[in-house]
Amino acid sequence: MENIKTLLDNKQYQELKQHLLSLNIADIAAFFEELEDKQQITILFRLLSKDVAADVFAFLQPEYQEVIVNALKDKEIALIMSDLYMDDAADFLQEMPANVVKRVLKNTTKENRDTLNKLLTYPEYSAGSIMTTEFIDVKQTLTVDEAFSKIKKKAADSETIGTIFVTDAKRKIEGVLSIRDLIMAERDALIKDIMNPNVIYATTTTDQEEVGALFDKYDFYALPIIDNEQRLVGIVTIDDVMDVVKEEVTEDMEKMAAISPTEEPYLKASAFSHAKKRIFWLLFLTISASVTGAIMSFFEDAFVAIPALVTFIPTLMGTGGNCGSQSATLVIRGLALNEISIKDYFKVAFKEFKVSLLVSIILSVVNFAIVWLRYGDPLLALVVALSLIIVIVIAEFIGSGLPLLAKVCKLDPAVMASPVIATLVDCIAMVSYFLIASAILGL
Amino acid sequence: MENIKTLLDNKQYQELKQHLLSLNIADIAAFFEELEDKQQITILFRLLSKDVAADVFAFLQPEYQEVIVNALKDKEIALIMSDLYMDDAADFLQEMPANVVKRVLKNTTKENRDTLNKLLTYPEYSAGSIMTTEFIDVKQTLTVDEAFSKIKKKAADSETIGTIFVTDAKRKIEGVLSIRDLIMAERDALIKDIMNPNVIYATTTTDQEEVGALFDKYDFYALPIIDNEQRLVGIVTIDDVMDVVKEEVTEDMEKMAAISPTEEPYLKASAFSHAKKRIFWLLFLTISASVTGAIMSFFEDAFVAIPALVTFIPTLMGTGGNCGSQSATLVIRGLALNEISIKDYFKVAFKEFKVSLLVSIILSVVNFAIVWLRYGDPLLALVVALSLIIVIVIAEFIGSGLPLLAKVCKLDPAVMASPVIATLVDCIAMVSYFLIASAILGL
Repeated sequence: MENIKTLLDNKQYQELKQHLLSLNIADIAAFFEELEDKQQITILFRLLSKDVAADVFAFLQPEYQEVIVNALKDKEIALIMSDLYMDDAADFLQEMPANVVKRVLKNTTKENRDTLNKLLTYPEYSAGSIMTTEFIDVKQTLTVDEAFSKIKKKAADSETIGTIFVTDAKRKIEGVLSIRDLIMAERDALIKDIMNPNVIYATTTTDQEEVGALFDKYDFYALPIIDNEQRLVGIVTIDDVMDVVKEEVTEDMEKMAAISPTEEPYLKASAFSHAKKRIFWLLFLTISASVTGAIMSFFEDAFVAIPALVTFIPTLMGTGGNCGSQSATLVIRGLALNEISIKDYFKVAFKEFKVSLLVSIILSVVNFAIVWLRYGDPLLALVVALSLIIVIVIAEFIGSGLPLLAKVCKLDPAVMASPVIATLVDCIAMVSYFLIASAILGL
Repeated sequence: MENIKTLLDNKQYQELKQHLLSLNIADIAAFFEELEDKQQITILFRLLSKDVAADVFAFLQPEYQEVIVNALKDKEIALIMSDLYMDDAADFLQEMPANVVKRVLKNTTKENRDTLNKLLTYPEYSAGSIMTTEFIDVKQTLTVDEAFSKIKKKAADSETIGTIFVTDAKRKIEGVLSIRDLIMAERDALIKDIMNPNVIYATTTTDQEEVGALFDKYDFYALPIIDNEQRLVGIVTIDDVMDVVKEEVTEDMEKMAAISPTEEPYLKASAFSHAKKRIFWLLFLTISASVTGAIMSFFEDAFVAIPALVTFIPTLMGTGGNCGSQSATLVIRGLALNEISIKDYFKVAFKEFKVSLLVSIILSVVNFAIVWLRYGDPLLALVVALSLIIVIVIAEFIGSGLPLLAKVCKLDPAVMASPVIATLVDCIAMVSYFLIASAILGL
């Protein structure tokens, strides 16, 4: 990598061009992202051989794509656009400002322009928005040999040749076969005799998360996408699904930490946009916390009489929150992996009840000992121990129940994670604690 | 699905056998997992056609595999074992009790037995433990036509034919090409002229997480795995990597919620094993919380003089914890996606500082208003507002810094997530709060 930088800085462009030939596309793209000088970015891009330029371009972050497109001539843009896969081209255009989109589309063939305009209208997170339109389809009546000739012709422009689709004259999907089926078949066999007529597909409006679930269940490499007239209009490939899975996980984790998800990478997002994505939940949670505080005012007499009671607040609130967030995390992840469904509600609740008893007894015993040793007061220790049991049982009940409730209400279970639960549990914890203290210590 | 159940219950086995032919392997496997009667499980398995039996078997959970193997005759086991891919066979054996393993290996060909024994010795989470040994390799000197004949012969037994590897006489890897390259080439071209000699590979001991990162970076469908004598011994395919990614994400989420990760699905794990994976961190955190409590004892005079101070504890501890966990989550995820690395430490710290100022000013203003309205005491409101600013700035500093520190120390950053940070922040929050209160209110 340092080698490239030196060659570029020394303007040894011929050597650099040679050196680039031996590198992997992903490595070249990674090197681009280390450059800051716009001119160097453009020079390096122009040194790429024609057959990898579009591939490298597809790998780049939008800000680099914009720099390059702005420096290229119309003819060069036309070349890139004819080489890009349609899904990569659509992703690229989606991130560009209007004037760049206009110029790029002007330098795209009419056919590709129509395809792109269509791809860009599919709703975000839909199968249509992640599919590509470049796939291989053959007719039932072809022989294996004829199919191979067709594949050979279309291979360079298809995102995958691993899966081949069979369509009728109206482009309705009739079957599917793998390149392996084709290679293993006799060369004069008919496609209709070796294809699998049970095709599993999604529609352009299917949510990308459901598309991911289909790949997960069936171990597909490519999934056909049909429009509402049942015509095959595109395919989603496994590498697109990997990106979807990553995005969805990031989104879940952010929601679980009370962050409103965005797609900006951490370092690229400004402090202002970071603050924006964090403040909504913080405001909601801080107001909830003052409600807990207001409720605690009712017990002021208790903690004036026995100030030591206040020093156990961190233990009760902390442990309650931690137990609730453990339960919530396990249930949210179980739902995401389809290991748990709504009908398992009672099983989950019963299991969490047993777990909360086991966990709370151990923690109570430990805290009983700590408090007794510190204050020499077994009654005070009893208050803490009993409160802990009640708080933990309630925390795990709420922690496991709320994500399932969210699922029933068609909300994202991830929103019902630790911070929301911790705040709710805090409130219940304080009330139970001071009620138990009042009863046992006679306050 | 209900249809199958009815046919099975009515013992209409001929109809059932016919019906199964039209179903997808994954759907058949999903149906198995709804059966509870061991005899029905075995009957259904025996009704599967020979060419899908092993595929369905590979899809099943270990407990179902065990029921089936125990019911099968030696000959039937031998058949399954010869049809299973080696990685699936190794995964299956790993979950079986010793007597089952012994019986299965006895009914496996010597060649496969040797391969399995080798696969089973690779450390957990290594590339060796997830790779399969069934791939297609050709020699440099073959023509495309000769390569096709070899592929045709080996296709049925290879996990993928999408990527073809080129090896020398000593099985050292020399190049790689895709089935697309092969199809697009002239039939008399030589492999050495169309192969890509820049092979990216991993070794049997590479961590599976690193293997996942390679797939992510290069958009591979299959990655070659070499032993320490540079010989090609297996391949990892993208569907195995999808499973790895899922596992790693679950592990990260569990660690982030203070759970010791296990691989058991939620509902399958007993209450006892759930308690076991949750209690370690809870004990650690409860003891940390009593340290915070002990420190708070020093300020007893303050909250006896002004009991209202106690009612702001939930706001300070809650908000501090939430801010810290937001920062920690963003940094942990950024590290996992390689969007952030250790060298970005100062960038991250500076960004978090700016974010914490923005966020804390908004939250302070809101809380200042709430406290002033509730108690009519601007000084008390000032105490809460100032404490919040300090707590939030510290929380985001710790929240973003600890995961990076963990990374430097070669620990998993995910462990440094919300609960650990919340407990640390609680302690700092309480000390700052009471110091500020003492200073401003003159306690």
